[in-house]
Amino acid sequence: MRVKILIRLKSQILEPQGKVIEQSLNNLGFNEFNNIRQGKLIELDLPDNLSKEEKDQKIDSACKKLLVNDIIEEYEVLG
Amino acid sequence: MRVKILIRLKSQILEPQGKVIEQSLNNLGFNEFNNIRQGKLIELDLPDNLSKEEKDQKIDSACKKLLVNDIIEEYEVLG
Repeated sequence: MRVKILIRLKSQILEPQGKVIEQSLNNLGFNEFNNIRQGKLIELDLPDNLSKEEKDQKIDSACKKLLVNDIIEEYEVLG
Repeated sequence: MRVKILIRLKSQILEPQGKVIEQSLNNLGFNEFNNIRQGKLIELDLPDNLSKEEKDQKIDSACKKLLVNDIIEEYEVLG
């Protein structure tokens, strides 16, 4: 199965790249886009025969050990 | 409404960062994670009173004009 992990800075942490995107979009006339923040997307394949619990446990473990800096980032798993 | 835009390199384009993550995970004992690719996540607020068509049209337009390099990247909109 293909899994998406969305990694974003916690909301209280400044994310300047999103501000740059927002300003650029505003300059192009896209004024409805607000509060833009950029994060990371990690997509990966896991074996289909894993149970949901095994899958969640492996992803959580990989996020905690490598992918996510728990101090400033949070993550969300889709699929 | 909060919208997520997932931007990834097209599958035929080499994505070295994903390979590095995959190797690092393998070194940590996570051998089930395969075909890892890293992309970008852009999250933004749009006014709640937009119709689905207006929302889709604005996002498509912003992606084509600024956010996505159509030659090497593809995008997916969630929410």
